Amino acid sequence: MSTALFDRFRERLGQVIDLHAAIALLQWDQEVYMPPKGAGARGRQIATLSALAHRLFTDAEMAGLLQDLASAPGGVDEDAARLAAEARYDFERAVRLPEAFVQRFAEEQSRAYHAWVKAREDSNFAAFLPHLETLIELLRQKADYLGYEGSPYNALLEEFERGMRTDTLRGIFAELAPRQSALVKRIMNSPRQPDCAWVDREWNEQAQWALSVQVLEAMGYDFAAGRQDKSVHPFTTNFDLHDVRITTRINPRDPFSGLMGSIHEGGHALYEQGFQEKDQRTLLAQAPSLGIHESQSRFWENIIGRSLAFWRHWLPLFRARFPQALEGVDAEEVWRAVNRVRPSLIRVEADECTYNLHIILRFEIEVALIEGQMSAREIPEAWNAKMKEYLGVDVPDDAQGCLQDIHWAHGAMGYFPTYALGNLYAAQLLESMQRAVPGLWEGVGQGAFQPILGWLREHVHRIGRRRTASEIVLEATGQVPSPDAFLRYLEAKYSAIYGLPAG
Amino acid sequence: MSTALFDRFRERLGQVIDLHAAIALLQWDQEVYMPPKGAGARGRQIATLSALAHRLFTDAEMAGLLQDLASAPGGVDEDAARLAAEARYDFERAVRLPEAFVQRFAEEQSRAYHAWVKAREDSNFAAFLPHLETLIELLRQKADYLGYEGSPYNALLEEFERGMRTDTLRGIFAELAPRQSALVKRIMNSPRQPDCAWVDREWNEQAQWALSVQVLEAMGYDFAAGRQDKSVHPFTTNFDLHDVRITTRINPRDPFSGLMGSIHEGGHALYEQGFQEKDQRTLLAQAPSLGIHESQSRFWENIIGRSLAFWRHWLPLFRARFPQALEGVDAEEVWRAVNRVRPSLIRVEADECTYNLHIILRFEIEVALIEGQMSAREIPEAWNAKMKEYLGVDVPDDAQGCLQDIHWAHGAMGYFPTYALGNLYAAQLLESMQRAVPGLWEGVGQGAFQPILGWLREHVHRIGRRRTASEIVLEATGQVPSPDAFLRYLEAKYSAIYGLPAG
Repeated sequence: MSTALFDRFRERLGQVIDLHAAIALLQWDQEVYMPPKGAGARGRQIATLSALAHRLFTDAEMAGLLQDLASAPGGVDEDAARLAAEARYDFERAVRLPEAFVQRFAEEQSRAYHAWVKAREDSNFAAFLPHLETLIELLRQKADYLGYEGSPYNALLEEFERGMRTDTLRGIFAELAPRQSALVKRIMNSPRQPDCAWVDREWNEQAQWALSVQVLEAMGYDFAAGRQDKSVHPFTTNFDLHDVRITTRINPRDPFSGLMGSIHEGGHALYEQGFQEKDQRTLLAQAPSLGIHESQSRFWENIIGRSLAFWRHWLPLFRARFPQALEGVDAEEVWRAVNRVRPSLIRVEADECTYNLHIILRFEIEVALIEGQMSAREIPEAWNAKMKEYLGVDVPDDAQGCLQDIHWAHGAMGYFPTYALGNLYAAQLLESMQRAVPGLWEGVGQGAFQPILGWLREHVHRIGRRRTASEIVLEATGQVPSPDAFLRYLEAKYSAIYGLPAG
Repeated sequence: MSTALFDRFRERLGQVIDLHAAIALLQWDQEVYMPPKGAGARGRQIATLSALAHRLFTDAEMAGLLQDLASAPGGVDEDAARLAAEARYDFERAVRLPEAFVQRFAEEQSRAYHAWVKAREDSNFAAFLPHLETLIELLRQKADYLGYEGSPYNALLEEFERGMRTDTLRGIFAELAPRQSALVKRIMNSPRQPDCAWVDREWNEQAQWALSVQVLEAMGYDFAAGRQDKSVHPFTTNFDLHDVRITTRINPRDPFSGLMGSIHEGGHALYEQGFQEKDQRTLLAQAPSLGIHESQSRFWENIIGRSLAFWRHWLPLFRARFPQALEGVDAEEVWRAVNRVRPSLIRVEADECTYNLHIILRFEIEVALIEGQMSAREIPEAWNAKMKEYLGVDVPDDAQGCLQDIHWAHGAMGYFPTYALGNLYAAQLLESMQRAVPGLWEGVGQGAFQPILGWLREHVHRIGRRRTASEIVLEATGQVPSPDAFLRYLEAKYSAIYGLPAG
């Protein structure tokens, strides 16, 4: 591979990445600062730049560069070879979808999204159904265009969790579902429920904000290479590894939702700030999958932020900002309150013990839809039956049931499982980290997060897209993705919180 | 002109405009919210999108569309014909500059900018001189590429003030300079100087901010189609006529700099919010020149915001936010303080009476440099001599003299005159408006700005780029651009403030 050839390729790819950064900024601004009347123009701007980025990435010049790189003689720098391979992977997926199909899909997405907003307001599944049917048909076509072995759902999964397979997930979830359901039942039957009466107070928004910034700084989030703003739905985005931004929302009646949201997004952001300098403006400064990205946010939010050690250190700092509201509350009470388990209707409000059950239900429905074993009109019945089976709750209406999430309205199937995989990966990483870092929890109890961040930087962040999520987990832990570590983690943590007898 | 052909052209042009909107957002964010470490990537992103926008606008497809539109039979919608003509004008200017030249110019700009920052810090003109020499040489080449009749400076002027000519400006400035200098001398000799001791107090930043928002709302600035943020250098930008944003900076030791800055930018923003809906995402939703744009900001800032009628209405609202600092201060005192005349070294701090003199000095030097009558090394001597002649001040060092402005370091010559033209246009518009709107000043004295905005919307804003600045002024006032109205305005206003005997 000649240096000149590779430099031309890298510059060309850099231009595509610059365009995607501009798109990300247009989207960030839309959620954070854009005045309401700017929405129409903003939608067009994002569409134009997306089309230009697609065209620039898939044009004859890029095709020629990739071909020349592939046929160039070896003796190659490993990073350069990997970058070329990753670009080829993205290129081949991008060109498999005909432009007319991409256009049609975008139009149906837009229609479905608007129909869904209305349908959810009215809890009227019938109004959303024809759009969902169209999207499912298009998703099946998309799978055909992309190609797959086994289930067509594999083709969709690949987009969000490269290398993951439907059968593998079925096996993992078959083990998770009954064990999590059983644990939830034991918890609900425990007489030792946390006392959360003190949570229902006024929590000053500025003080909550300041505390979240303090925790983010302690985690190692670099505010000179990022910032936190407010938005309706919290998210993380980046325009470069030196400009990684998060958003949060503060609820004045709840001291945890803002803080835990900040820690969650902070986990995502630490990942993106941890890509290697030499990978800047390349595809290697990216996560290989959503699952591994989610493992980082969930690690920090749930495993660290909801640990007793964490609250032993942070309660005094929390109390300094809310001396009255926290009078007489000790670290163990905070820890128990922030880990309260309650089967509920809404996924995004679910606790650690019930969360995966919401995902498994969605996964099972998605697979049945894409494989053609279920039709869209059967969704509400299937949804409600599974909610009863896994979580023991009755769904009062579709707004709080199968219409609650935006994903299907966006034509995204294969996305939900990555949330559950994030939980599993995080628990697997924790077990390895605990072996490698003696005194880890004593450190957390003293506010020291550097050993944790250092371990994640080395075993996850610095790798970027050089490995798949499964490879990262395997190399870091010696195990392929599996539910065991997560189940051990849940069992131990919640037995302590709820004083459960041995299961 | 066939509808299909025009629609293709308009969509293609719309894509270029979308790209420019994204560039404007990348720049806005850079000044307002970007974390410091994001600067490197941001520079590359702006460069990439600028190059893509240039390529998309000047490629073979656009050339073909413009040719087809030009040769299509008539019977044409007037707006469509005008849009095609404007696009052709921009296209022809864009393709006259060879890509290698544009690249070279951008590189020299970047080098010169960094050298200037350092040279200004050190007040070391010699360190900036070689860069300035190179830029002047490139600007002369640029004029040759663009083409001109008469002075090569005409080619540069055209970029900022289309249709304006060097000789016309020479004539205007030859009348302005001695009369403004004479007025300043009379003012400085007046025994009736304003008392500004009360200004030197603490002015709470939040209260200043809230007052600026209140004034902007009263002016008619639509916060649902814009927003105000803080930045080091105030500016106005837009990403669409429904998303026009301004910035300001608040000085806690000065109650006027922030407020007057907000009114100034608000004047720019009202212009851009006032383009016609049907011109959205086209070149017609643009100002035809910087001078006419500046006429709007200066109209609102100087003519309205620094009027006695304005302060009769706003002083009580100002006082409500600063009851102690404004104790015993009446509207006339505020009016006299906010119009204090003092010959000074720095253009951006200059008052209405001295401002144009700063511009005329720069214009004379620029023309001499571009026409080859002066070499760059002679600038400091010429600068200091003119400062003495026009303003009577001695320049202590080049940092406060010829190194103070960023424009030359950016390779922008022909830009400065537009500030002075803005003053002249504003005064001409005022005279017409006063004839057309009886009770205009009584309205201002009651906080009613709607008649003013209505008149500007009709005679300036709605026109967009359909006319040149000169044509707009001529149609609105019956006069070509001239210094007379501005001189009448200055004479009347400052005679009243300083109690001058008839000149």
